[in-house]
Amino acid sequence: MSRPAHRRPEYRKINKDLFVLTYGALVAQLCKDYEKDEDVNKYLDTMGYGIGTRLVEDFLARSCVRRCHSYSEIADIIAQVAFKMYLGITPSVTCNNASRNEFSLILDKNPLVEFVEELPTGRSSLCYCNLLCGIIRGALEMVHLAADVTFLQDRLKGDRVTEIGITFLKKLDEKKYRRKK
Amino acid sequence: MSRPAHRRPEYRKINKDLFVLTYGALVAQLCKDYEKDEDVNKYLDTMGYGIGTRLVEDFLARSCVRRCHSYSEIADIIAQVAFKMYLGITPSVTCNNASRNEFSLILDKNPLVEFVEELPTGRSSLCYCNLLCGIIRGALEMVHLAADVTFLQDRLKGDRVTEIGITFLKKLDEKKYRRKK
Repeated sequence: MSRPAHRRPEYRKINKDLFVLTYGALVAQLCKDYEKDEDVNKYLDTMGYGIGTRLVEDFLARSCVRRCHSYSEIADIIAQVAFKMYLGITPSVTCNNASRNEFSLILDKNPLVEFVEELPTGRSSLCYCNLLCGIIRGALEMVHLAADVTFLQDRLKGDRVTEIGITFLKKLDEKKYRRKK
Repeated sequence: MSRPAHRRPEYRKINKDLFVLTYGALVAQLCKDYEKDEDVNKYLDTMGYGIGTRLVEDFLARSCVRRCHSYSEIADIIAQVAFKMYLGITPSVTCNNASRNEFSLILDKNPLVEFVEELPTGRSSLCYCNLLCGIIRGALEMVHLAADVTFLQDRLKGDRVTEIGITFLKKLDEKKYRRKK
């Protein structure tokens, strides 16, 4: 699945509207399938996890990312390289605790909800973009980093911004998560 | 929903792997939901139709497409402008009949199946990319063009190429389908 970093980069770019609308159709389908918001959220997360585990190899092959030395660096790479590459946005990153293992990605814009005015009726607990949490979790796990990834704020729920929280769960072990050469 | 043609085009571009893998998750979900391939195909087409009806306005706003004078021109625009814009590929177009209302789009490459080796077990009648047919059908209907759109060949089914057939169903009426100014 991996590809050289500089091979026909333009071929890999597409207009995002098709993706955004297809994602909307996926969420709508899951809302049909599952009555409880929690089940939809869980399913989106699980689906995202699978996607993340496949996407990470390609990401490492195409990005210029090398070894990271701190959780802070990893959070920055997720925001500045991965989000930029896959969604065309760069969330800002804040560290939320003294142990420096809890971070927030603040999304001023969220392309995934571009065609969404509000959550569907009766779906007030839906984490519409929960696929993203699963993707981050899955990708991190593939480089041997366990993390909890959840939405802490969501504009679709009336919050001022959309905020994804990442809590790294294990002591950092450089040997394990550095990129294979 | 419409946007000026030249507004921040780069913001609208994303890497396609995320879309391709998400689409795969959507198809997998529908295969879980519906036992019969025909039902999955139908549902993908219906979903695509909804997406096409929303995508077309944006497409007209951002593309340089003006009035078309023949079905042949329309088929060329779908292949050379729309496919290029949304999937990064340009299918070749052939006209299949003397009345010049039946066309084929021949896809040498199909990014949507990039991560798919073969159809899922027991799913030999699945039209994996049927969303595309629905999108084309929906988009054409929004410009008052009725069409049948189906897969005629599919590499995932062992065919040499992937071929989408478009049959325009009504006599061409310039007034109806020309772009609104």
